[in-house]
Parts: sequence; C-alpha cells; structure tokens
Amino acid sequence: MNKYLKADAWCIVEEGFDPQNMRSSESIFSIGNGRFGQRANFEEGYSGDHMLGSYVGGVYYPDRTKVGWWKNGYPEYFAKVLNSTNWTRTDIVVNGEMLDLNRAKSVEEFQRVLNMRRGLLQRTCIVELQDGAKIRLETERFISMAFPNRAAVEVRVTPLHSVKTIEVQPMLDGDVSNEDTNWDDSFWRHEGHESHAGAGTSVLCNTTEKTEFTVACAQAVSLAGATWTGMEAAKATGLSASFASPETQVVFHKHVGLVSSLHATPAVCPKKALNEAIEGRELGYLDERARHEAAWADIWSLGDIRIEGDVEAQQAIRFNIFHLNQTYRGDDARLNVGPKGFTGEKYGGASYWDTEAYCLPFFMATHPEHVAEQLLRYRHNQLGKAIENAEKLGFTDGAALYPMVTMNGEECHNEWEITFEEIHRNGAMILALRNHEAYTGKTTYLAKEGVEVAMAVARFWAQRVHWSAHRDGYVMLGVTGPNEYENNVNNNWYTNYLAAWCLKYAVELVRRFHAKVGEDELAQWTDIAARMCLPQQMGTHIRLQQDGFLDKDLMPAAELSEEARPINQMWSWDRILRSCFIKQADVLQGFYFFQDDFSQDELRDNFDFYEPMTVHESSLSPCVHGILASRLGRKDKALEMYLRTSRLDLDDYNAEAYQGLHITSMAGTWMSVVEGFGGFRVVDGVPTFQTMLPEGWSSFAFKLQFRGRTLEVTVNSDGTDVALLSGDALSVAVNGQTLALD
Amino acid sequence: MNKYLKADAWCIVEEGFDPQNMRSSESIFSIGNGRFGQRANFEEGYSGDHMLGSYVGGVYYPDRTKVGWWKNGYPEYFAKVLNSTNWTRTDIVVNGEMLDLNRAKSVEEFQRVLNMRRGLLQRTCIVELQDGAKIRLETERFISMAFPNRAAVEVRVTPLHSVKTIEVQPMLDGDVSNEDTNWDDSFWRHEGHESHAGAGTSVLCNTTEKTEFTVACAQAVSLAGATWTGMEAAKATGLSASFASPETQVVFHKHVGLVSSLHATPAVCPKKALNEAIEGRELGYLDERARHEAAWADIWSLGDIRIEGDVEAQQAIRFNIFHLNQTYRGDDARLNVGPKGFTGEKYGGASYWDTEAYCLPFFMATHPEHVAEQLLRYRHNQLGKAIENAEKLGFTDGAALYPMVTMNGEECHNEWEITFEEIHRNGAMILALRNHEAYTGKTTYLAKEGVEVAMAVARFWAQRVHWSAHRDGYVMLGVTGPNEYENNVNNNWYTNYLAAWCLKYAVELVRRFHAKVGEDELAQWTDIAARMCLPQQMGTHIRLQQDGFLDKDLMPAAELSEEARPINQMWSWDRILRSCFIKQADVLQGFYFFQDDFSQDELRDNFDFYEPMTVHESSLSPCVHGILASRLGRKDKALEMYLRTSRLDLDDYNAEAYQGLHITSMAGTWMSVVEGFGGFRVVDGVPTFQTMLPEGWSSFAFKLQFRGRTLEVTVNSDGTDVALLSGDALSVAVNGQTLALD
Repeated sequence: MNKYLKADAWCIVEEGFDPQNMRSSESIFSIGNGRFGQRANFEEGYSGDHMLGSYVGGVYYPDRTKVGWWKNGYPEYFAKVLNSTNWTRTDIVVNGEMLDLNRAKSVEEFQRVLNMRRGLLQRTCIVELQDGAKIRLETERFISMAFPNRAAVEVRVTPLHSVKTIEVQPMLDGDVSNEDTNWDDSFWRHEGHESHAGAGTSVLCNTTEKTEFTVACAQAVSLAGATWTGMEAAKATGLSASFASPETQVVFHKHVGLVSSLHATPAVCPKKALNEAIEGRELGYLDERARHEAAWADIWSLGDIRIEGDVEAQQAIRFNIFHLNQTYRGDDARLNVGPKGFTGEKYGGASYWDTEAYCLPFFMATHPEHVAEQLLRYRHNQLGKAIENAEKLGFTDGAALYPMVTMNGEECHNEWEITFEEIHRNGAMILALRNHEAYTGKTTYLAKEGVEVAMAVARFWAQRVHWSAHRDGYVMLGVTGPNEYENNVNNNWYTNYLAAWCLKYAVELVRRFHAKVGEDELAQWTDIAARMCLPQQMGTHIRLQQDGFLDKDLMPAAELSEEARPINQMWSWDRILRSCFIKQADVLQGFYFFQDDFSQDELRDNFDFYEPMTVHESSLSPCVHGILASRLGRKDKALEMYLRTSRLDLDDYNAEAYQGLHITSMAGTWMSVVEGFGGFRVVDGVPTFQTMLPEGWSSFAFKLQFRGRTLEVTVNSDGTDVALLSGDALSVAVNGQTLALD
Repeated sequence: MNKYLKADAWCIVEEGFDPQNMRSSESIFSIGNGRFGQRANFEEGYSGDHMLGSYVGGVYYPDRTKVGWWKNGYPEYFAKVLNSTNWTRTDIVVNGEMLDLNRAKSVEEFQRVLNMRRGLLQRTCIVELQDGAKIRLETERFISMAFPNRAAVEVRVTPLHSVKTIEVQPMLDGDVSNEDTNWDDSFWRHEGHESHAGAGTSVLCNTTEKTEFTVACAQAVSLAGATWTGMEAAKATGLSASFASPETQVVFHKHVGLVSSLHATPAVCPKKALNEAIEGRELGYLDERARHEAAWADIWSLGDIRIEGDVEAQQAIRFNIFHLNQTYRGDDARLNVGPKGFTGEKYGGASYWDTEAYCLPFFMATHPEHVAEQLLRYRHNQLGKAIENAEKLGFTDGAALYPMVTMNGEECHNEWEITFEEIHRNGAMILALRNHEAYTGKTTYLAKEGVEVAMAVARFWAQRVHWSAHRDGYVMLGVTGPNEYENNVNNNWYTNYLAAWCLKYAVELVRRFHAKVGEDELAQWTDIAARMCLPQQMGTHIRLQQDGFLDKDLMPAAELSEEARPINQMWSWDRILRSCFIKQADVLQGFYFFQDDFSQDELRDNFDFYEPMTVHESSLSPCVHGILASRLGRKDKALEMYLRTSRLDLDDYNAEAYQGLHITSMAGTWMSVVEGFGGFRVVDGVPTFQTMLPEGWSSFAFKLQFRGRTLEVTVNSDGTDVALLSGDALSVAVNGQTLALD
C-alpha cells in the first residue's frame, strides 16, 4: 500500500515530486481514448527510473515464447502490447541545459493532476536548473475522445530567474523498446521520418516486424514568434525553435495525428496522420480541447456514479469508470479490453475472460448498445482461431477453445496449467450471450453468430468430458478453475456446472434459432448436461470446489500470520496448491453467475464455507464476494470488499501499480456498486434493485442505459429512488416493489 | 529408430561416412574415465553440423534460470554440464588445405570403432581433398583409466596421391561454448595459454565464471622428424610442424594432462597438467595405452556379462556396462552419475534419484565396495543443502528434501510439478541405505551418516502429510509420482507407501544406532507410518496410483494409434495428464522396491492392471517392468522390455542419441539381466537367483562382487551354475535350492 494521492471528487492529484512514485504515477495518470493511449511520461523527457509507454490498440508484436521446459501444445509466441512512437516528447533546453527533473537542482510546487471530468493530464512545477536558472513549467495534454486519431500537448515555460535562452524541441521519437521483451528482438522496423521546418510539421512511420502493422505519427506545432529548424536523429524527427532573453511565457502547442494500418493502407498512414495533425492545429488547441471535453461530458452523462459522504470512495469509482472508458470505445470489433489497457506492458494480449465476465455488464449499462455488441463480435470474428486452438489440443469437429490470452484469437499463454487447463474461460463466452440478451432483449447477434459460438463451445465440452462408470456420471479431469491456486484438479464444480449449462443452453439456442445440429448430437449434449458429475458434500449445501477438496487441511485465512501474506509471494507454489486457500471466487463465481439456480440458504452456506478461506489475491476476487455479501445483507463484508477493489491501484494495495493498472477489475468495482449496493439485476426484462447504503455514505447514485432509456438510481438514508431520465415508460422493481416509470 | 551400427561382441562399429549420423555417433562413441570425458568429435575438426563436447567431472556453471512464468521457490540457476577445453584438436593441413571431412571431395573406407574391451576410439578413412590430393587418415585415442588425469591421441596420415606438404597442428582450444546456454553468458574466463616449440608442449588454463573452477589442459607431443613452431589464437594454443614431400606415413602422438581445481590449487593446475602430459610422453604411447587397457581388463574381469546366441544383445549389454564405467569411477564423493555422463549437455546437473534407484546396485555388484559407498557419501555431504532446499519450501526443524537435479546439493530444476512435487526422490535416498546394508552387510556409513540422512528425510515426510479426519488417515496432497504423466495428484500410492516405509525405517535406525530423537517424534513417525492413506481398489489387489485414478478412461496403450506415439510428442500436455497412460513404473516401482511386502498374486494383478497402460516413454521404464515380468515368469514380456532398454541408444529408439546417452538407464539394463533373467536378490545375506533363459539366447553369464567374493552365474539350457571364482565359502540359493560354494 502506498497512499500518496490527494482525495478529490473529480481529480487525481499528486503533490510534491517523489521519484520513487514515478512508475506508479505514470500508470495511474495514463490517458487514452480507446484507440491509443499512453503512460504519463514527462513531455520533456526524464533520465531517472521510469517506464516509457505509448500504445496503439490492436498493434502488437508476436514475441517468441520464453519457457523453461517446453510442453507440447505451447504457443510459439506471446503477443506483446507494443511500446510505440513517443509523440509527446517535447525537449526544453534552458541556457543550453536540457530540462530534466531528475537532474534539476530543485523541483518545487510540483503538482500533477488527472482531471477525469475533462479528460486532461496536467502538470506544473518550478524547476531550478544546474546553472541556477529557474522556470515554471506547465504542461497539459489529452488524447481526443472526439477525434480518435488525434491528441494535443500544451507546454508553457515561464522564465523566473537567469533565463538567457529557451529552446523548444517538439519531437516524434520512434527509438523505443519494450521492457518485457523476451529475447531483445527489435520489434519495429523504421520506415522513415521527416520534418518540414517551414510548415512546422513532422511525420514518422514505423512498421512492426512479423505482424506488419504500420503506425504513422505526425505533429503540427504552433508557437508564437518561433522560427523552426529541423532536427533529425536515428528513428526520431522534430523541430527546434530558440528564444533569446525571453521575458514572458513561451506557450507551445503540439497537435498530434496517429494513424495505424488498422484504419488505412500502410502507404497512406503518414499522409493521413499529417492531415489529422494539421486539422487539429487549424481547429486550434482550445477548440480541440473543448470538443474533447464535450465528448467526456457525454460519457459521464451516461455512466457517472455519484457517492456522497465519502470523497475517497467517490474518487475511486470515477477513477475506475474513467479508465474503462479510456481503454475501450466500442467502435471496432478488432479491439478489446486489455488487462492493463494502455497503461503498461504486463500480461500482453488484449483479451481475457475478464471481458465477458466483468467488463460486458459495465459497457452494456453505460454505453449505447452497439458498444457491448462489438465485444461479442470480437469473439465471433475469432471463432476460426478458437477452433484451431482446440485442434492443437487434439479436439475435432469444430470444437472451439477460446484462448486465455490473445490479440488475434490465437492462444499466447504458456503455462500448461493455465493455457491447457483453465478452460472455464470458454463458458464465459456463452454466459456473455445469455447476459447480453437478458439485458438488451435483442437477438440480432445471438441468432446467428451467437449460436455458432455456442455450438462450437458445446462441442468442446462434449469432447472434454468422458463417462465414468465408476462415478456414474460425466467427469472432467485435469482442469484449473478460476481459483488458480489449484492446478490440474478433477471435477472442478464451477467448470463442470458451467459446462453443463453451456450444453443445455446450446441445445436451447439451436432449437430456437433452427441451427443445423443433428439430433444425436443434441441428445448427447443433453445427456452430458443432465449427468455431469457435480461434487457436493453429503448432507450439506456445500458444492465442492473439486474432487478431494475436503481432504485438505481446512482453516480460515485469518489464521495465516502477517508474514505469510500474500501467500503468492511468501509461499512456494506446492504449498499454495495443497493448502485450502483460495485466490478468487470459484464455487462462488458459479453462485454469482447462476443466482437463480440456488436458494439464499445455499448461497449463505457456501459463502460462509468458502469466503473465509479466500485470500483475494486476484484483483477480480473482492468484487464478486462484495456482490454476494450484499445479496446476503452482509453490509460490513460488502463494504470491506468494495474498498479493497475500488482503490486497488490508487492506493497501490499490492505494490504493483508501477506495472500498469488493473483495468478489467475496474469493471468489477463498478459491479460492486451497481450489482452489489444497488442490487441491480434484470429479471425477465425488468430492471430490479435490492439496495443497501454502505456505512459512512450519505448517498450514492448511478445511471443505467437500458433498452433505449436512461435510468438514474439514487440511494440514501430515506430510501431508494429510481428515475427515468429519458426514453419510454417502463416498470422497475425496487426493494420488492414494482414501480411504473414514465 | 536408426540402426546403422554393425553388431559385434566387443566393438561398436560404424562403416561409411554419413553426416546425418554425426551427432548421434559423437554421443555413442564417447569416451571417458569417470574424471573427464568427451564426445567423439573428430580430432582434425569438422565444419559440418556436430556438437563439440569435452566435460570435466564436477566442473559446472550456474546458468541463470530460464522460465516463462516464475513460481515462488524456483532456483535461481540451473547447473550446466560445461563444455571445456577441446584437447583432442589436431588440425591436419594438406597442400595448404585444412583437412575437413565436411569439405572433402570424397571420404572413402570410413570406419569408426569403439573398442570396448580395450577402451579405444579408433577411426580410419581415405580422404580426397579439394585439390585432388589423397591421404589415409587413422586416429586413435583414449582417456586413461590407469592415470585419471591423462589421455592420449594418435594420428597417422599416409600420403596416397599428389601430397606436396602435410602440416600437423596439435592444439588446445579453449574457445568453446555450451549449446544449451540460457542467456548466451560466457561460461569461462580465459586465464592464459602458452606453447613451447622447443619442448613440444602447450598449456592452457581457464576458470569458470561464478563457480571459479579452474581447469588446466596440457599437451606434450611427439612426431619423428618434426620441427615445431608455436601457434597462438584467441583462447587457443598449439604447435605446428610441416613436412614437405612426405613419402611415408606421418605418425603423431599427443599426450594430454588435464587437472582441475578439484584436485589441485588453481595456481598449480597448469604445472600439474603439464607434468602429467610430459610423464605420458615419457612413458610412450604404447606403454600408456597398455596401462589403460590393463585397467579396462580389470574392470571387465569384475563386471562383464556374456550373452551367447545373440550378438546384438551381447554388444548392447557391454555397451551399457562400458559407459557406466566411463561415467563413474568411485574415487571421489563429490562426483556422481550424471544422466548423460560425459556424452552431452542435456539435463544438466550430476545426480538424479536414478543414482540411488538404478545405479547403486550396478556399482555394488561390479566394483570394490568403496565405489558404491562414495555414492552414499555424496548425499550425506549434501545434507546441509538438502535441508536448505526444504527450508525454501517452508519446511523446518532440519527436514531435508534432496534435489531433483543438482551438482552441489542445491536444487536446479524449475518446473513446479517436478521440483516441488516429485518428492518421492527423497525416499530413494533411504532405500539406498537399506539396499546397501542388505548387499554389503556393513553399517559403517549407515550407523552415523546414514541415520542422519534418514532422520532428516523422515522429518520431511512428517511435515509433508497432514491428518485428514475425512479420510481417517494421513494424506499427502499435491505430488508427482515416478509417472510424470500425472502432475499434482493426491495420495500417490507409491510416494505414500515409500514415505511410510521411510518413517518406519528411520525409527528402526534411530533405535539400532542410538541416534538422538525424542520419543514424541518417534511416536509421531510411527503413527504416520501406520495410518498413511494408501489408495486401493475395493475388493481387489489393485493399489491405486493416486486418488481418483479409477475415474479415468482406462484403456490399454495398445489401443493408441501409431500416429499418437510417443504421446509426449504427439499429444498436448493436458491430454497426457488426464489420460490413463503411464510414462514409467509408478505403483509397480513400489512392487519392485518392496518385493517382500506383496504376494505373487498381488504382483500379478497390479502388473496386469498397470503394464498395459504403460507407454514406457522414460528410459527408466522397461527395465523395471522387465524385472517384474521375469519374476512373474513372463518370458516374452521380459525379453521385449530388455530389448527396449538395452539398445535404446545403439539403435536410437527415440531419435535422441544426438543429445547424449541415457547413462543412468544403462544401469537399469544391467538390472534387467542380473535381477531379471538372473532373478538375483540378496535374501537375509544369501545371494539368491531365480533364473530364466530368454528365447534365442544359448546362454548368459554375469559376475558379481559380493562381500569380498567374486561369483559367476552361468545360465544355459542345461540349467544354472553359480561358481565362486574367488573369496571365502558361502551359501547361495539357485532356483529354490541352497548350494554351499567353496
């Protein structure tokens, strides 16, 4: 835990310059617009320890796999989120000395602000250089939500003391690399760059090795009184303007265009990028920013959550919503919600089962309907690759296994116990279909693409089980459940339950939408679903996480000593595996997804059995437990879990914010409020709420997009109010009462 | 399978030059003397694909671990068997052209012979060079069994056609590297080298990075009529002599000294190496060779096995015995029997549980008693490290876990399912104590060092299990048995049975030798041993390989299609894991080790249950099954298993001889004959034989060193004869009859 940021309802604020926090602040203050994004690297550069990171959605490098002992079936490569051209770079030279906060004599009045309402990253400080000169530096930048290929940077330099010359050198720097490269491969092939001093523009173009993605970056600069000269370096280009004896503030603007070959033929990318930059400059910084802020205002108007009485809780939930929107904009079915978004390199790939299990509800509820549908289409587009993945593992006849980690549908992960065995992910794809129809009431995607996905996944499950006469049921051996602190177990209840449900649901979809599947196959799916082995403790409600779970030495996590936590850092892997301790919801994930299948008594007994053994060492754990605690009316536990999930990165609970943010778990945080404290579900098409006001909050309110309407739910000590802000009349159920809204 | 070698009772013979076989021949024709050894690289160098390999016992490099996803508890490094100075190198230049079989115009009458009786590697061929010149090349070399720091090379060049000049350039080449380096580290630091043309000598000295082992190599050359000049290169030194218009054969000898800092202080190594080389030259090549051959004659006189009627079987068993003797000489408790010996890099490390489980019986039976005792001492010397290994995994109070792979006692392996979970290896250390006493009747080592090892291992088992009220027994979760095609299973019968036995045996040793262990602890060990969970199928003799084994889809390996074999190459890992197929003896390994604990009926039922599901994809598998088949009187199965183990490398069954030979499984081959067909066991101090003559053999005979005697057992169609060749009178039991020999 590292709590150094100021609480504020709309802003993240860092005061005072501490190089120790550099990497985590670079993550936390990241900006993006769903198409590209960037860590909060200093515009003027920084020679101290930090991590440069500029990422373009859908552009990746297939880094050759690194593995100790090769297992048959491992993928050949791991798709790396790729550090791309550093387009913010704007060197400032004062009296011939490069401005660098790491080498300055002093840095005072340092403040960094992420204004989430406006979508702006701002920084100000007073810097004393080595030669005694002093300036005030103010920077602001944004990546446009209005124009997805554009960004802009403002730099203001105010001479305060002994400033003889100021040079401003806006650059495009393609000389970048990934810290997480496996083999020190060069990921980019430099295509060329040039600057036109007269026009105040530069263009730089790179293409990825192997994957052949082209990314062109351009800048169009403006600075009153500047006479630009060109500056070239290896893989970098830019401009330079010098001011002798400046008396007043130097105000510089850089308009950036970034176009990748996802949106233009490679040859055209540089020209398109340049046009975007020039159009931005023509519009002007203020107007460009105003359009960007208006787009953010729209986003907030659909998806804000207000919390009163607890500014930290308010700040945290907005931080989560803000980053989710920066990561995914929903206009491109080739993109998805990467676990670190545009904030870091870790994990690689762009999509995990997190998308279907956690992110879909957020995007359905806070965005126009087409956004969530893009997430579904992403998987249908990759169905062919999912079938190939399954074939590599010996499956046949169109069975599909969606990857654990991927960019283009091919599996990238290489731990056998995860890659080959954590197959419950395949079921999440089908749950997403069910949830999407339940929420939207629409079957446009489901009727054709959805059924195809469901059939292919059903075929996988049908081949993955086998009949055991000994158990008098279908068994599924050698799996890893959501609780990754168990590997290669047999009959993981969650996986088996989910698989059985997938098979039943596939039969239902095939019949509803008249898909072509033989009756024999449907009968087989029905049989497996009906006779799946589902371990349960005799005479109790307890579903057993897997075969043999009761043989473990069962004890609550509270009995663990301080020094043993987190166990994934303190214990060897075998000790974790044979212990009873649970990383994240496993049986309880099933109770979360299949609420209607179980009684409150069953939920209570399983929650009381499993939650105490859960160490919540996954960022995806507290939210599900918080929601279930809410369902059980356990206020304290629900709030404890909420706090743990919502400020995970802001307060850097696990000392890992430096790697990037936990983007997908942010959707879980949103769910903790809306599905947890708000108790929101859609029951037979009716939005239904069972609310709870957490201790210390005077009120909270959230909005929902629901079938063409905007609902606002407000919960305070007087009760719960649901308002229909726009759209046709509808009925809702609130704490057991049905209300007709119009 | 690649069968290109000629059958011969005493020699391995390759005829005709095929570059495709280069790497496997380099392995198969390797020579060594237990102190150092070498792949059969060509003396004159070779520019085609091959693998240079010259290894020095006990000299290793701790290469930084390579791993995809780090698990807590992994070792930081992997000890590499280290490619060391190439001392055979002797360049031959004809008419200014470097002799190189890869670039020659033609290579005729090529023959390579490994004379196992004499311990000589010989090669002859006629080479036509690019310029049309033709020579006959004959080489011979050996690594002295008589003088462990010495080796010698003979090269004969006979001009046949158009030879104008011949240059001979004997070198010491320290510019070598490992193919299996993880990070391209430089393993060696070059200390220096020099040649004295007048003296006809060279010395070269290197020291390993990190581990600081010094290895000095020297050569002292002789060649009638030569005038030497020095030749120096980076990390190499040597001499050159030129002959103009040679009419007769040029006969060159190189005497090599090799001394490492295991046997001298680093500063003295070069001088010692030089002295050894010069002494060799003074003795002369023929006398040096005679002493070496005499040493081999002694080895064969103790340990030969004769098979009549099947020259391939004869050749194979000698090949196995030959390489075991080349790998381990038993005069140094710091050394052990590496899985590839001095024949390749693969696997790294110097000792696996193979030593205790497979190699110890061979060395006890074919060598003076001190040899096997060195193998036991090796483990006691590393007890401190074994305790550290256990501490890294959370064990306390002096519990020890012997490593899966090691050089100096520290664990080097980094797959969690092996490193942390394949802990049955710990029991093999204790079985070795039992077997050693049973064989030798001696307790010198056992009484003190042995008890210490047994106590530390008992403490490990006592902490590794826990009481399960649910199972009403002690359970051991999360292990990998000898069958590595199951990972992270619960209650592996073999491991649990072995652990229970270790605990009982430790109590017995503590009481016999009055070691200091509290009564409470002894009571706990006794209790665990008595109430260990041992899975068994209800109403049958079948011991269950692990919990849940019967849930698998059980089928014989014979039902697998050709294309599915070997499954470790054709199937993904998860498919292997959830299948019933068994890599090597697991339950049956227990029946092998604890023969007296089970009836023939029990053995038969378990053999018939497990063997058909066994794919024998470990080199250690067929021998154990062969021995058990012999015990059951299953002649065909016993012979099938014998053939599979004995010519594994010679016929390159698994297309992996190029990596090096399966040294430790060679001891299993020896066991197949002696314990299998010979049915040899020691029962209450009495050598006992239950013999079987395999189909197609007219007879076989083996010798045993037993408590100061040499026994020879001969089996033919007339029956079995046991002769006492030397030593005091004793009783033996042969096929149910007791005989008094004198």
